[in-house]
Amino acid sequence: MRVVRWVDGSRTDASDRLALEEPLEIRVRGRAVTVTMRTPGGEDEDAELCAGFLLTEGIVRGREDVLKVEACGRNEWGNVVNVLLAPLVHVDFERLTRHVFASSSCGVCGKATIEAVRGGCSPVRSDVRVSAGVLAGLPRRMRDRQALFEATGAVHAAALADVRGELKVVREDVGRHNAVDKALGHAFVRGMAMADGVLVVSGRISFEIVQKAAMAGVPVVCGVSAPTSLAVECGEELGVTVAGFVRDGRVNVYSRGERVIA
Amino acid sequence: MRVVRWVDGSRTDASDRLALEEPLEIRVRGRAVTVTMRTPGGEDEDAELCAGFLLTEGIVRGREDVLKVEACGRNEWGNVVNVLLAPLVHVDFERLTRHVFASSSCGVCGKATIEAVRGGCSPVRSDVRVSAGVLAGLPRRMRDRQALFEATGAVHAAALADVRGELKVVREDVGRHNAVDKALGHAFVRGMAMADGVLVVSGRISFEIVQKAAMAGVPVVCGVSAPTSLAVECGEELGVTVAGFVRDGRVNVYSRGERVIA
Repeated sequence: MRVVRWVDGSRTDASDRLALEEPLEIRVRGRAVTVTMRTPGGEDEDAELCAGFLLTEGIVRGREDVLKVEACGRNEWGNVVNVLLAPLVHVDFERLTRHVFASSSCGVCGKATIEAVRGGCSPVRSDVRVSAGVLAGLPRRMRDRQALFEATGAVHAAALADVRGELKVVREDVGRHNAVDKALGHAFVRGMAMADGVLVVSGRISFEIVQKAAMAGVPVVCGVSAPTSLAVECGEELGVTVAGFVRDGRVNVYSRGERVIA
Repeated sequence: MRVVRWVDGSRTDASDRLALEEPLEIRVRGRAVTVTMRTPGGEDEDAELCAGFLLTEGIVRGREDVLKVEACGRNEWGNVVNVLLAPLVHVDFERLTRHVFASSSCGVCGKATIEAVRGGCSPVRSDVRVSAGVLAGLPRRMRDRQALFEATGAVHAAALADVRGELKVVREDVGRHNAVDKALGHAFVRGMAMADGVLVVSGRISFEIVQKAAMAGVPVVCGVSAPTSLAVECGEELGVTVAGFVRDGRVNVYSRGERVIA
């Protein structure tokens, strides 16, 4: 788009690229469960986003639970996808929509959410060890693959890495949660290992991010920014190692520090 | 709290300060309308947060509409406040809770929200002019007053400035939206002028931020980060000047550029 650029008081016309945000309505068995503002990335990425969302909401556990994610064209707002689940997968629609509401980042009670998560999610049990040196390098490696951020400066990113520091998938989105759901969903539908994974995030580490890692069975979360108090509490309770301020060769470990070694 | 710090592969114990996030249940006339995860800042700041929230949700228009914000002690989750409104203020509870849901940053349809906002909000009409030089300096001036960010690195900030570049109020919160509601609420309850105001934000400029500015009657939004596509669209429609990437003497103007002068 055309923008007006002011540099030290002088005006020039310029062009700029903006990150797209468009609504995606997610239906499960034909029933709308949420509408999320996401950065469109094609049908594959939408399918991964849905799979990651259902995984981190505790609806599906194995990839065989998701039969198909089908695009239904556009409704009055935007895109719609419908997720077909295996017949035996039980969906408590009331709990799901209540919890989607409850985990929105604009609000709603964290304690209640933590209770809800605890109910549906046992702590991550993983004996995996990861070196501080590997963690220290991950945000930079992810940054090198954030193509959309490079172009627009307005998107978050999330990646799943292994404990050797190899990035398995990097995804970007205007929404922090969506970026995480996309990355975890990608790994999930491909049957990639989660139990020795490290979730790398570009933004703040809030409790919802830790909660999503726990639901997916990922034992370590790291990021360049700080965690919040509730994220650390949640990490301790749900067995997730939280490493923040990962930059310039430094790593701060806030919970479950036994997994980080020299 | 105690953390383990790794610096270039060596382990030390250290202490660190985390940004607090705690739930606040907002009741209006005794009825719960939302629970937001906020950084506690005392009763005054909670009252300002509530006032800002009701202002940017279009429930109150003048400060005489808010009679009192009373703390009700703690419920099972955390703090609760109840807002007493003047008798003639009409509250459509169903629309309010629907809209609170609809404007959460984890989701829900932006187009529908824009429709809802357009219905309740006429475009900001303000002939105010602000120089690119003033805009260019605002994020840095706000940064110098972000005490919590300095300590924790995990909080967002929002400020209301005038067109001469003077910061009227700076507020911090773990939630981007809360920081904006706190700053606007502070200005609102004190009867400060909004029509020549500039809302400065530390995070991305998403459409909800532009929407909040419009609801409060603030004509200009600026920030160091990029706006999203919907924020720019929303700014054009609701009469809000959106200036992004404000750093190093540079300003990009994305909508309603006529208000920015040399």
